[in-house]
Amino acid sequence: MFADKLILRIPGPTPIPPRVQQAMNHPMVGHRSGLFSNLFVKTAERLKPIFGTEQDVYIIAGSGTSALEMGVVNTLQPQDEAVVLVSGAFGERFAKICERYGIIAHRLEVPWGDAVTPELLAAYLQDKPQVKAVFATYCETSTGVLNPVRELAQVVREKSDALFIVDGVSCLGAVECQMDEWGIDILVTGSQKALMLPTGLAFLAASERAWKVIEANQAPSFYLDLRAYRKSLADRTTPYTPAVSLIFGLEESLNMIEEEGLPQIIKRHELMRDMTRAAIQALGLPLMTADRYAAPTVTSVNPQGAFDPEQLRKTLNGKHNVVIAGGQGHLKGKIFRIGHMGYCEPLDVITVISALEMSLKQIGADVELGTGVKAAQEVLINHV
Amino acid sequence: MFADKLILRIPGPTPIPPRVQQAMNHPMVGHRSGLFSNLFVKTAERLKPIFGTEQDVYIIAGSGTSALEMGVVNTLQPQDEAVVLVSGAFGERFAKICERYGIIAHRLEVPWGDAVTPELLAAYLQDKPQVKAVFATYCETSTGVLNPVRELAQVVREKSDALFIVDGVSCLGAVECQMDEWGIDILVTGSQKALMLPTGLAFLAASERAWKVIEANQAPSFYLDLRAYRKSLADRTTPYTPAVSLIFGLEESLNMIEEEGLPQIIKRHELMRDMTRAAIQALGLPLMTADRYAAPTVTSVNPQGAFDPEQLRKTLNGKHNVVIAGGQGHLKGKIFRIGHMGYCEPLDVITVISALEMSLKQIGADVELGTGVKAAQEVLINHV
Repeated sequence: MFADKLILRIPGPTPIPPRVQQAMNHPMVGHRSGLFSNLFVKTAERLKPIFGTEQDVYIIAGSGTSALEMGVVNTLQPQDEAVVLVSGAFGERFAKICERYGIIAHRLEVPWGDAVTPELLAAYLQDKPQVKAVFATYCETSTGVLNPVRELAQVVREKSDALFIVDGVSCLGAVECQMDEWGIDILVTGSQKALMLPTGLAFLAASERAWKVIEANQAPSFYLDLRAYRKSLADRTTPYTPAVSLIFGLEESLNMIEEEGLPQIIKRHELMRDMTRAAIQALGLPLMTADRYAAPTVTSVNPQGAFDPEQLRKTLNGKHNVVIAGGQGHLKGKIFRIGHMGYCEPLDVITVISALEMSLKQIGADVELGTGVKAAQEVLINHV
Repeated sequence: MFADKLILRIPGPTPIPPRVQQAMNHPMVGHRSGLFSNLFVKTAERLKPIFGTEQDVYIIAGSGTSALEMGVVNTLQPQDEAVVLVSGAFGERFAKICERYGIIAHRLEVPWGDAVTPELLAAYLQDKPQVKAVFATYCETSTGVLNPVRELAQVVREKSDALFIVDGVSCLGAVECQMDEWGIDILVTGSQKALMLPTGLAFLAASERAWKVIEANQAPSFYLDLRAYRKSLADRTTPYTPAVSLIFGLEESLNMIEEEGLPQIIKRHELMRDMTRAAIQALGLPLMTADRYAAPTVTSVNPQGAFDPEQLRKTLNGKHNVVIAGGQGHLKGKIFRIGHMGYCEPLDVITVISALEMSLKQIGADVELGTGVKAAQEVLINHV
């Protein structure tokens, strides 16, 4: 197998387009130079439509988790109370970050695979007027659930004065998001998902409401102090050394995103989701999420013991050069997840489904070759 | 001018070797895959000789500052006392990080351009037995001083029970460093200097003494919690998503470092320092640092008002495609700094000196063309 033909279909990191790789080969430049300053300010500006905001978007050298932590440490103090919506591993991460800082995290938990509904949140907030922030996960990567953040935001606004802080890491750039209009106060994402970049950058925007809290809040952190990033961006620079080569890549990935257009990108991801789900259903495998809350970026399947998902993944990788993801947390070894996000097209979905069918056959599962492919084709042919 | 022939001679980021750029073009892989796990563990292992340690080296997705903060937040608690050796902007940064966490930072300050001597430190520690950590900067990037960390470490050991925590960002990989033998407890560096990589990775190693403190210390941070990195490395992985493409680059830069050999790399940097200093002196310009404490990676020059260093830098950049650095902090606009670090050879120094001479002439400074070049040649010719 050609190592460079590896088919990476995990929910991040996602494949890097050749144009973006090429852009990252730009000779190194000084991070305090005029050239870099212009590049940095312009790329930050061009991220705004992806967030659906008029606010500045800050770019951090770090993993998505660094920006999740920024959302906590810049808004809350020890003993403050927060509600954390936990529908999987990344909701749980928000809760753990809160607890690390001595913040009281009330977990609104739903079974993994379910979404947190507006009704659940409204009821949960009823007796918690003291809560200063509500943390939500837009796409819960560990289950493939797209939580209804638009409706959740509305509930937060109606039922409390809390800030609404959202992890958009594994969907922003592939789903609709109107941060300002919906009333999201802090929104975070990472580079290695729908933005088609390597890992290493995190992004964050904050509402005017959030900035009032942030400016009044003495963040204990230095590297993650949002006020330093705001002050520096006003001077067209960064407080600490930025990840220069990734910013060159970001410029090119934004070119690609603007050429295709966000509405079209969102439709492409919905199509890939629908193809994947149709194929999985045609193969008789149980999807983990309801149609209504199915993420356009990742699909989770729980074979419920019919076969070993880890054996399936090994076969896909070893025999077909295709990589999909396994389960996280208590679902480790029990489910598999197919990423269809970023530099990925409908025909790529057909390829993965085809390899999936063959691998299922090879591990002795009950499957008829071509069934899933046909179902995916039927979805696709109506769109092209 | 060819944009891709930009000559970047600042003290970081430094130019990326084509081999390293090529390596970073490796197709993206999953960060939890066996392939990446092997790559990550092996590259971390190969960093040990650069640190001069048998301890594990941790790789963080972030700027150097994130790892400086790790050195603080994992070892100290609010109200603890620390001594911070401040010989320039980066010593000052250590002090500011301490203060952000409510740590009492006793600054042992020397004029910018001077080194902190063992005698000064010994006297300063005399009446401070309560100090829990001493923070030092190996190469102070803002002045080009190489502080005598080996001797400073000895003083810390003799005069106190404090941990000795060192910022090696702008020299590690280009100077001798024997972390274990000298008694450094935490040592930090970044990717964009002598390691010839883009910005975006930070590195940290800790002694057994330091680990006792770290394990007993409740770090308030999540992303910068060293215990999480230690636990994950034992499982051959990282706690949060690593910067995958930079790790592919690191593997190749380590190949280059091992092919040339650390002793030879150190000699090359000393030679480039000696050439640069000889040229600057031949041109009658005042060096900022004494020979004894001159860093092999960056040389600072203070024209003391004879001409405007910013005008010099503009001319170098605009007419000759050469970028050097200006001053930081109170030296902004008053000095210039030439980086000679990483992917840089003696002939590159000649080029920069030549462009420097012409630019000096072009801004009307009193200089005879060729004087500096000749002095640099004389140093070089005795070495090849």
